[in-house]
Amino acid sequence: MKIGLIGLGKMGFQLALNMHERGQSVIGYNRSLQKVKALQAAGIAGTNSLENLVKQLDQPRRIWIMVSAGAPVDAVLTDLTPLLAAGDLVIDGGNSHYRDTLRRAGELKEKGIHFMDIGTSGGIEGARHGACMMVGGSDEDFSQVEEVLRDLCVPGGLAHVGPEGAGHYVKMIHNGIEYGMMQAIGEGFEILKESPFEVDYAQVAEVWRHGSVIRGWLMDLTQKAFQEDPDLASIKGVVHASGEGLWSVQEALDLSVPVPVIAASLFTRYRSQQADTFSGKVVAGLRNQFGGHATVKKEEA
Amino acid sequence: MKIGLIGLGKMGFQLALNMHERGQSVIGYNRSLQKVKALQAAGIAGTNSLENLVKQLDQPRRIWIMVSAGAPVDAVLTDLTPLLAAGDLVIDGGNSHYRDTLRRAGELKEKGIHFMDIGTSGGIEGARHGACMMVGGSDEDFSQVEEVLRDLCVPGGLAHVGPEGAGHYVKMIHNGIEYGMMQAIGEGFEILKESPFEVDYAQVAEVWRHGSVIRGWLMDLTQKAFQEDPDLASIKGVVHASGEGLWSVQEALDLSVPVPVIAASLFTRYRSQQADTFSGKVVAGLRNQFGGHATVKKEEA
Amino acid sequence: MKIGLIGLGKMGFQLALNMHERGQSVIGYNRSLQKVKALQAAGIAGTNSLENLVKQLDQPRRIWIMVSAGAPVDAVLTDLTPLLAAGDLVIDGGNSHYRDTLRRAGELKEKGIHFMDIGTSGGIEGARHGACMMVGGSDEDFSQVEEVLRDLCVPGGLAHVGPEGAGHYVKMIHNGIEYGMMQAIGEGFEILKESPFEVDYAQVAEVWRHGSVIRGWLMDLTQKAFQEDPDLASIKGVVHASGEGLWSVQEALDLSVPVPVIAASLFTRYRSQQADTFSGKVVAGLRNQFGGHATVKKEEA
Amino acid sequence: MKIGLIGLGKMGFQLALNMHERGQSVIGYNRSLQKVKALQAAGIAGTNSLENLVKQLDQPRRIWIMVSAGAPVDAVLTDLTPLLAAGDLVIDGGNSHYRDTLRRAGELKEKGIHFMDIGTSGGIEGARHGACMMVGGSDEDFSQVEEVLRDLCVPGGLAHVGPEGAGHYVKMIHNGIEYGMMQAIGEGFEILKESPFEVDYAQVAEVWRHGSVIRGWLMDLTQKAFQEDPDLASIKGVVHASGEGLWSVQEALDLSVPVPVIAASLFTRYRSQQADTFSGKVVAGLRNQFGGHATVKKEEA
Repeated sequence: MKIGLIGLGKMGFQLALNMHERGQSVIGYNRSLQKVKALQAAGIAGTNSLENLVKQLDQPRRIWIMVSAGAPVDAVLTDLTPLLAAGDLVIDGGNSHYRDTLRRAGELKEKGIHFMDIGTSGGIEGARHGACMMVGGSDEDFSQVEEVLRDLCVPGGLAHVGPEGAGHYVKMIHNGIEYGMMQAIGEGFEILKESPFEVDYAQVAEVWRHGSVIRGWLMDLTQKAFQEDPDLASIKGVVHASGEGLWSVQEALDLSVPVPVIAASLFTRYRSQQADTFSGKVVAGLRNQFGGHATVKKEEA
Repeated sequence: MKIGLIGLGKMGFQLALNMHERGQSVIGYNRSLQKVKALQAAGIAGTNSLENLVKQLDQPRRIWIMVSAGAPVDAVLTDLTPLLAAGDLVIDGGNSHYRDTLRRAGELKEKGIHFMDIGTSGGIEGARHGACMMVGGSDEDFSQVEEVLRDLCVPGGLAHVGPEGAGHYVKMIHNGIEYGMMQAIGEGFEILKESPFEVDYAQVAEVWRHGSVIRGWLMDLTQKAFQEDPDLASIKGVVHASGEGLWSVQEALDLSVPVPVIAASLFTRYRSQQADTFSGKVVAGLRNQFGGHATVKKEEA
Repeated sequence: MKIGLIGLGKMGFQLALNMHERGQSVIGYNRSLQKVKALQAAGIAGTNSLENLVKQLDQPRRIWIMVSAGAPVDAVLTDLTPLLAAGDLVIDGGNSHYRDTLRRAGELKEKGIHFMDIGTSGGIEGARHGACMMVGGSDEDFSQVEEVLRDLCVPGGLAHVGPEGAGHYVKMIHNGIEYGMMQAIGEGFEILKESPFEVDYAQVAEVWRHGSVIRGWLMDLTQKAFQEDPDLASIKGVVHASGEGLWSVQEALDLSVPVPVIAASLFTRYRSQQADTFSGKVVAGLRNQFGGHATVKKEEA
Repeated sequence: MKIGLIGLGKMGFQLALNMHERGQSVIGYNRSLQKVKALQAAGIAGTNSLENLVKQLDQPRRIWIMVSAGAPVDAVLTDLTPLLAAGDLVIDGGNSHYRDTLRRAGELKEKGIHFMDIGTSGGIEGARHGACMMVGGSDEDFSQVEEVLRDLCVPGGLAHVGPEGAGHYVKMIHNGIEYGMMQAIGEGFEILKESPFEVDYAQVAEVWRHGSVIRGWLMDLTQKAFQEDPDLASIKGVVHASGEGLWSVQEALDLSVPVPVIAASLFTRYRSQQADTFSGKVVAGLRNQFGGHATVKKEEA
């Protein structure tokens, strides 16, 4: 079975290499010819024409979309759908919102086109050498591609978690948990930094990798980060949020589930992107009003 | 009854004016001759000698300490106590930690000296024109000074809330609530600032002062702050924490009471004092490790 | 100018009494004849027919809707709009989401019908004796009803804060702040309850009403609540959330504004509605796994 | 080198087995003869007399204390210290507060007795089969026992992180991070539980163990917990806190470090131990006062 892979960005490109290495037949597509050529240089077929891509796949086609969440996925589907036939299977392996996934699955179903969502974890390294995949879709569709997927995952790293939407839902929750775990690690090291002891952060992260309760991949990566830059002196503590942490909190709100930790992690990221805050100005202004507490003037700070 | 007032800082000076205006007999003390002279210029007796102060008071003496919490209170007591006699009453009207108050009350009691703690709220304006006072001490001591205290407070603004320590305890909790309320107001205006509407902050604060659920003195002051500086453009959102918010959270922790809002208010102040955070660096470093997410380099930010 | 008032519930009924007392001409509508009769018993015209209501108003009509947010407002508009003419003015005085308001204003505008949103604060007492109203709408529409509105508000309690939607937006933020303030007060009293001192909650709330930094209507009400039930022994700490606190947090998330305090207040309410939590089960289960910490069995708790 | 091990509780007993299995010479002590006999039944020397224990060790002695933090450690030291000689080494392998450790190290140093603190992670399983140990103490003392310690740890799981106190400090931070991670996992599964999808929790935890960003020991244990009890139906979500999470937050407060996530995790545990909250009563009472919102009566809930 040949797979058409749409999107050769950070994740998609590595996934193509992974597929190719496992002996799977893949043909990559990207609008940018440069990326197509890079793929071809790795010995993998590629094209910058959707029509070409579709033509080279036998029916029922298997097309894997690996582009940024949101509008880009809809843009791809708008162009792709007219080229497909009933019975074809479209897989969205990106970080789409599960509600978009439910909508898209419904729209495609009207045309007889099958849809499957895969939440993919493990970062770039995982895409390349063995990922964790949470799959949403029908039993029938899953069984069609199960072997291919299992090949791309680390052992144990594949699960069919429910119908369409469930894959992206479970991945969203995964990322919410990830936000909380990362912030917990960050807070711990910030206390250590201000502590009366002069600890070697890389050494601490290293010992926590072995036998501790908090051992795991995030601690492995923490150790690597400190090994590369012992005090993280070269980087700013500005943390962007790519969507799924926010969606987790929004989902929790919709479901009336208290999520103080995931929300705090998200707010901390938002705060990290602000040089100053209006709420802080209001509180500083209030203290000045009632207590005569001097405010820090704009020019001083 | 003449009152000796130790400490002519922001609060103490206004309190002396308040006492004087109500026809109370007060003699002020400050180490700095300059402040004593300022008091005298207002027609109030003053001295920069503790001995003088004590000598001018009839026994049993009433001495009111209004200095910064912590070491300054102990320093005053170290110098003052040897000059006092059994039956004298020392009042700590500052923002002392209640545990210090309990200790000091115990130490003085051994010498037969009475102790009373007054948590004073209402800011500088309150000290001058009518405060809110939460008093800890014995019934007997309270009855001795009740009339004097009532004079200094707005109507209804005096309460004997318990034995020694209770006054400072209740004031600590007052400030914990104050932290939460102020942060809530700050957050509300920050959403307004980012909202699709261009609102006039002073107008909004003004309407909320009249008939709304959240009307109160803090909203009055919010309105004043915006009236003086419509976008608070002149000040930075850096908010200091003077002790009692922290103590409220520490007390809650000791008592296993969940205080998510007061703690969040405190953490937000701490964060406002940081230009960058180590926790943010760790999280940014982690995202870079697993996702190849670019970090913001030190020099760029 | 005669006003048609749709909805004679908790807020609407009081508002009708308020209008009537100020000498305004009002005719009330409710589907339930019982409520209409209660209104008539108070000497105010009422009907349970929308057609009748509309017929009794001169053009351009002024119709004030005071029903529950969401579907009920749309239901009223569906029935009402066909009866109206270009130039009529519909006022939504309820707690609608501002996005619904923007949509409705747009839909009515297509028919030449004017729309105005009023966020009303001050509770039932305010609706009856003088409210706080935050108005969104055009300058022209506002000037048409300004005098009527001013009459219904406490002095200073009326503000035209922006175009359509702005009134409900500002009210939403008001409620977000309210959530935070109430939770701050609750936390403070919970620490007091666990404290080493036996304080009289009503006395503490009473003294805080006078001259303190945190004085305001919420503290007045806190005092009343404790006066009626000194330990609040008769009620459970289950707190419902009626929408606007949630919307404030959702809006903040959409705008990337950190709102730790308002969010914590909301989560605390959600938590208060749960008898047990799944997150707690997971954490208890985890502690049992690694530390052999006994879990509390279902039947024991 | 023979090691005297004081305390044969959950952790100490397993540690004795671990030492014995690695061919180390160990003699265990417990006040309870029953535990001593259990140790002897495993072929390991034991005594319920401290004098006996000390007598059987050659100087300089190596004595490892593995008892509950706080008073029990001081009680052991009070009895033990008079039996020791200058040059002996006392190791506290429990979860002591680092400030107690600093004090104890100082007190013993006056008698020429060396002190070393070991934060031990990995739970009961780790104590038995290979732990993670964070060691505080002098270079000289560490080098004396390094080989013994390395034997008890998993490969890589031993680090000398600083002078006396540093081991317990780093362990405290480890547990703070652990609190945050566990709560993040709990929140994620609680959203899943309320989600529109019916997921198999054990399956989700299992797939997250393999290749995901959040893989690690806590996820392994989450999977085990769900495997044993698919909906955790048998246990209540009541979570106790054993000290170090609290200490992490207290330390952060002392250092002015914002730790919203670790604090939220701790507050959530405190909340889980409450059947009802006073703060909730206050907020419910307030809503009733201003909005006429019905409260849930005690008897109904």
